Amino acid sequence: MSERIYATYFIETPYPVDRAAEVMAGEQSSGTFTRLANETDQLRANHGAIVERIEPLESVDAPSLPMRPLQGGGDSPRYQRANVTLSWPIANLGPSLPNLMSTIAGNLFELKEFSALKLLDLTLPMSFAKAYPGPQFAIEGTRQLTGIADRPLIGTIIKPSVGLSPQQTAEVVEQLVEGGIDFIKDDELQANGPHNPLKARVDAVMPVINAHAERTGRKVMYAFNITGDIDEMRDHHDYVAKAGGSCVMVAVNSVGLSGVTHLRRHCRLALHGHRAGWGLYSRSPYIGMSFIAYQKLWRLAGVDHIHVNGLRNKFSEPDDSVIASARGCLTPMFEPPAPGCEVMPVFSSGQTALQAVDTYRTIGSTDLIFCAGGGIMAHPGGIGAGVRSLRQAWDAAVQGVRLEDYATEHHELAQALEAFR
Amino acid sequence: MSERIYATYFIETPYPVDRAAEVMAGEQSSGTFTRLANETDQLRANHGAIVERIEPLESVDAPSLPMRPLQGGGDSPRYQRANVTLSWPIANLGPSLPNLMSTIAGNLFELKEFSALKLLDLTLPMSFAKAYPGPQFAIEGTRQLTGIADRPLIGTIIKPSVGLSPQQTAEVVEQLVEGGIDFIKDDELQANGPHNPLKARVDAVMPVINAHAERTGRKVMYAFNITGDIDEMRDHHDYVAKAGGSCVMVAVNSVGLSGVTHLRRHCRLALHGHRAGWGLYSRSPYIGMSFIAYQKLWRLAGVDHIHVNGLRNKFSEPDDSVIASARGCLTPMFEPPAPGCEVMPVFSSGQTALQAVDTYRTIGSTDLIFCAGGGIMAHPGGIGAGVRSLRQAWDAAVQGVRLEDYATEHHELAQALEAFR
Repeated sequence: MSERIYATYFIETPYPVDRAAEVMAGEQSSGTFTRLANETDQLRANHGAIVERIEPLESVDAPSLPMRPLQGGGDSPRYQRANVTLSWPIANLGPSLPNLMSTIAGNLFELKEFSALKLLDLTLPMSFAKAYPGPQFAIEGTRQLTGIADRPLIGTIIKPSVGLSPQQTAEVVEQLVEGGIDFIKDDELQANGPHNPLKARVDAVMPVINAHAERTGRKVMYAFNITGDIDEMRDHHDYVAKAGGSCVMVAVNSVGLSGVTHLRRHCRLALHGHRAGWGLYSRSPYIGMSFIAYQKLWRLAGVDHIHVNGLRNKFSEPDDSVIASARGCLTPMFEPPAPGCEVMPVFSSGQTALQAVDTYRTIGSTDLIFCAGGGIMAHPGGIGAGVRSLRQAWDAAVQGVRLEDYATEHHELAQALEAFR
Repeated sequence: MSERIYATYFIETPYPVDRAAEVMAGEQSSGTFTRLANETDQLRANHGAIVERIEPLESVDAPSLPMRPLQGGGDSPRYQRANVTLSWPIANLGPSLPNLMSTIAGNLFELKEFSALKLLDLTLPMSFAKAYPGPQFAIEGTRQLTGIADRPLIGTIIKPSVGLSPQQTAEVVEQLVEGGIDFIKDDELQANGPHNPLKARVDAVMPVINAHAERTGRKVMYAFNITGDIDEMRDHHDYVAKAGGSCVMVAVNSVGLSGVTHLRRHCRLALHGHRAGWGLYSRSPYIGMSFIAYQKLWRLAGVDHIHVNGLRNKFSEPDDSVIASARGCLTPMFEPPAPGCEVMPVFSSGQTALQAVDTYRTIGSTDLIFCAGGGIMAHPGGIGAGVRSLRQAWDAAVQGVRLEDYATEHHELAQALEAFR
């Protein structure tokens, strides 16, 4: 039995669900709008996508996405919802991430038969685990690089996102490392603009990180945002590595699958994946892709960390979705002996000391990076106090103590609770 | 006055529109959820995004995308729609396509203030035209490579999409070139799968193309689908070039901006851009990106052709959208003396001889590639007759003759009208 790729979709259609599912399967494999003489039964058997499973859901009386009027469907058709699983033989595309995208998330989104079509999940055969390196450092490697064994990495984003000079960035970094931060990242908007070029930023920031590491024996991880063209990213990666940095960041949607895969193969540092633009995939319940499917693509491409928002974030994502996303990152993609490709979920977006206890309670793991931008930078006691308030909040969380109780003996946490409540 | 980037969005929000627009501008530049001490007035003035224009539209009584309940908005808020234009200084990001994506199509899609947010249009400053090569062959170069001066390129997609062997593919190509085709492309599902590897396909197909060119002096353009990892795409490009091919194809969404840009810089052949996955950007009116904005990114990255569906296509896209998309491809992106970066729109998806007259009438140009898969392969007279029916249909279109009238003296067209009506 040859290997197959499985993908599950949420669909809505005014046509009979089994017929609509066959249209999806046909469009994404050997079929077209009319049957051809050379589309033999043998060819279909070997290369056609298969409708593996249909789970009917509710029906609704109006299409969720605009679509053409149903042909011959009468005046008021019903729109049936279902979860549908298709499968493809690996012979069609081989273990190729970009071609996987064209197959599972390509033309089918446009099919006129559907008033909703969203990719929910994805199961890849072992040949993908062999073809792609997956995360290089992942959870354990990130812990080794930072020297943080048994608690979340407390992180922050340089703010303001853009506008600081390299020297001003380094001054913020100085305060952060003095405050005890574990992880710092550039904002996704700050890459290599003329106001703060990457190399000038590395030149300003790394001496601060390195001097702190000399003093303390612990190197703070700084994720330099090297998002850019291919040769630029390679060059910038090498520059960060040479300066003693331990991490580079890319906005994965902005770079794309081929670019991230290429960078990973070249990379000697931890690769921090930012998902800027994720709302385009996630905001509509009726088109797009679940994070459960999405993060598997980027894990295989080789990121070590990926963003999942955070509880009570400043965006539109509900908490249950954040929790499911973080758990997804920590769930193996392949059976042993293949690597599980687990990566560190990155919590961020409006995070402060307030969310630590609930985050730990719901995720049940400390294998995560907990990033606060304003939650550190806007702490009334200053940046160092902001960092300490987060460390204290996580200490309370792991010890199972209420934040309010812990705050009675931890001043910075008390300040944070008052400022951000 | 330094250069600025302009982007226009359709938005919907239960908050006052001007406040919501400021949230967008802040999130995508120097702001975060709380104002920081180091976000000085000077920094804001130099780096903050500016709300340039707000055009209020209608309001609705329910949010178009799921969003959190409005804080303090009462029981039944109205959701105001508007078109909003923001601008950014180039100093923030420099002329970088991936970082442009993070800026104009990044986190803002997730903002909790919006129940709809779609990127409608984009205007880039001249530094982008200097930083990126844009299309290499574009319209004139494609005409020179194919020897077709003054009519559309009649094209086809190898069907079945997947499942043919390299030799079977070459046999189809033989019939197509004998039938007088101008352009042939691999399906977006057929790249380098083990059943039909790219190099074996080149080895089988190019002798047919080259032999035909020797006989006729006219080289049919075959767009080999080299979608894949970076090194693989470079290698495959070189292989196609060495075999005498004139075009390679990539699924642009699957590869991503950095990968396509990199390939373009390496490329000596026409670069055919397939937009598989476009439905993810386009299907919802409330999230995503218009093709008018989208195609500018890929033109600057360097594709020579890009897909726009076709009239009465097999997908969900309405005809007026197809027409606007094709016109967009033919509209200059920059003022002279910078290159306009116009590219050839590729019509496809359920196209047959039936759509030629209306396509020419509505586009008013022959600067396009008109692709029919089933419309050629399923022609009752066979593949050669299918090609001839399309040539005849376009001759009729350009001469301003009705298809039915032209069909009285053109048998293959008559057969097509009967078969596909």
